[in-house]
Amino acid sequence: MAGDVHDTHLAFIAREIFALGLRIEERRTVGDGAAIGESLRELFSRAEIVFVTGGLGPTSDDITRDVVAKLLGLELRKNAELLASLKERLKARGIKWVSSIAHQAEVPDGAQILPNENGSASGLYLKADINPQVRSPHIFLLPGPPRELQPMFRESGMSILRSIVPGPPLFERRFYKIACMGESLIEEAIGRKVLSIHQVVRSELGDLIFTADDETLEEVLVKLLIKKKQTLAIAESCTGGLLANRITNVVGASAVLLAGYVCYANEAKIDILRIDPKLIEEHGAVSEQIARTMADGARKRARSTYALATTGIAGPSGGSSEKPVGTVYVALASDGQTKVRKLFFPSDRETFKQLTAQVAFEMLRRKLI
Amino acid sequence: MAGDVHDTHLAFIAREIFALGLRIEERRTVGDGAAIGESLRELFSRAEIVFVTGGLGPTSDDITRDVVAKLLGLELRKNAELLASLKERLKARGIKWVSSIAHQAEVPDGAQILPNENGSASGLYLKADINPQVRSPHIFLLPGPPRELQPMFRESGMSILRSIVPGPPLFERRFYKIACMGESLIEEAIGRKVLSIHQVVRSELGDLIFTADDETLEEVLVKLLIKKKQTLAIAESCTGGLLANRITNVVGASAVLLAGYVCYANEAKIDILRIDPKLIEEHGAVSEQIARTMADGARKRARSTYALATTGIAGPSGGSSEKPVGTVYVALASDGQTKVRKLFFPSDRETFKQLTAQVAFEMLRRKLI
Repeated sequence: MAGDVHDTHLAFIAREIFALGLRIEERRTVGDGAAIGESLRELFSRAEIVFVTGGLGPTSDDITRDVVAKLLGLELRKNAELLASLKERLKARGIKWVSSIAHQAEVPDGAQILPNENGSASGLYLKADINPQVRSPHIFLLPGPPRELQPMFRESGMSILRSIVPGPPLFERRFYKIACMGESLIEEAIGRKVLSIHQVVRSELGDLIFTADDETLEEVLVKLLIKKKQTLAIAESCTGGLLANRITNVVGASAVLLAGYVCYANEAKIDILRIDPKLIEEHGAVSEQIARTMADGARKRARSTYALATTGIAGPSGGSSEKPVGTVYVALASDGQTKVRKLFFPSDRETFKQLTAQVAFEMLRRKLI
Repeated sequence: MAGDVHDTHLAFIAREIFALGLRIEERRTVGDGAAIGESLRELFSRAEIVFVTGGLGPTSDDITRDVVAKLLGLELRKNAELLASLKERLKARGIKWVSSIAHQAEVPDGAQILPNENGSASGLYLKADINPQVRSPHIFLLPGPPRELQPMFRESGMSILRSIVPGPPLFERRFYKIACMGESLIEEAIGRKVLSIHQVVRSELGDLIFTADDETLEEVLVKLLIKKKQTLAIAESCTGGLLANRITNVVGASAVLLAGYVCYANEAKIDILRIDPKLIEEHGAVSEQIARTMADGARKRARSTYALATTGIAGPSGGSSEKPVGTVYVALASDGQTKVRKLFFPSDRETFKQLTAQVAFEMLRRKLI
């Protein structure tokens, strides 16, 4: 509750269980030890399924396992197999064994172990009324870090839930992702009354929808480029590597991205992208001409099908009355023509970079469809 | 509650108000319209301060403003000044005006407007018992997007809170940030009993602490480099632009980062970093030799004081028995010597990239201190 951890679990779990027709009725966030016990006691007495996240680690504030075992009147026993695999895991990574880690091998009687491929804390599943003496819901104890919880939830959690939940799901969920368009404009285009009708959304918005799956704009781009056997180079000034970073987050990016040039200093623009210093002097590094020449230079240098380039003023300083902070040029070079768009995103540095990346990716996507 | 939005507000607000000695007693997340009204009615009857986030936008599901006005028996009136500034804002950005946007200019009688520098939805502050007929706490209505809420909270919210909260804060909060070291090892080093004692933490961990402020590792690096008037180049294979992206998120990065080379394809390594193709053939692109040569090549090319380089196998494919997925080499070139570290981070792609970035940045930091 002191603000150190961003909770992404509600969003993740809600989305996953939606497919089973389940929805979250209540989400609670509580602070210290005593509050955990009280909250769980209340929830155990009335919920059907409870997900408890965090508190399974090796340090002394990781008490979830103990609190739950005590509430349900279950013994905690050290699991030999789990202990051995913990030791092996740490050894493989060259991490020193500390005695407190052994606590993570303790399992309440009758609980099912949910393997953790991405961390040392196993998850636990305790079926409803696991101790016949105590009324309890289905309980899932899950590790706190999202990169551990999420694969565990998908690999072990969902199949257990499927065996608990009867019948088919009640809802259908559809994605229509759109870049570079405000929500008011979208609501106006499709109207309030038809928000739920797939055909209308499709006919009114058409190609503006970059995907109707749960995927990112960069995933769509990498797929399109792989399908067409085409390649990409990126020359970044103001976005400082964000475009390349987002593209390389996608599995398979290596087939598509030949090179990224983060040319922050003018010297790098001249050296790598072979930009004429006189052109920078004449128009300034943040200009249509430089954006265009950066994209052309990157495409030529990497011998790629396309090249994207960005140059702008992220701020907080560096602006002028003619080119205020937030001014940005985005260029797309392809065979035969190079397009440049001028935009204005006066906001914080990271938002400025993200909005610029969206525009660049959307320009390329429109070219590819 | 369907999982579309990650809630970062608890973490942010808790951290901000900690400085005033305030703490969050309860955080609730609720779904549709009726549930919002019920939850607010309950909280208004017993809390001292309530922060309501989201639901201030232009679309038909943005009902917070109306629900709160109704609960407190206040009239909503269109504010002419706010309406004019909204129109101006959209015009400056070349965004089309849609009639539903005007709803954002409605203000409950007696409420104070909190300006939004980063979006169209203003925040609102309603002082305690704003309608003498109805008992109510101090209420802050804040926009949902973190990039809008956070500056508003810092610029307007905190000064209002300071006028509400009497006396000095009760707690002190200290940061000790450490990269590339597990929590068990840290707990063992400092012991459980001394967790709160500044001197012991300092003497036991010393230079392992990269900052005792609330700042990132990349912020520390940019500061150190600016102070020493030194510069950096980055050559990235497996991290694909993440290092450059993190460095360029820091204000002032342009004084430090000369260039980033995202050399994903071997051709780019050969072209930009002037790596001998025979060396790649002999050792493979993921090797100590290539990491070293990448760092040296980047340093030479950019004429920087230091260069960082990464080459590894992010996966999911591309691994071998000798070099499994997760293998990565990180190199730091400086005047006179180039150091290479071999690491093993078998995890998902994004985690692999982040862990590699931490190691690279920590290598450079150790060099700089």
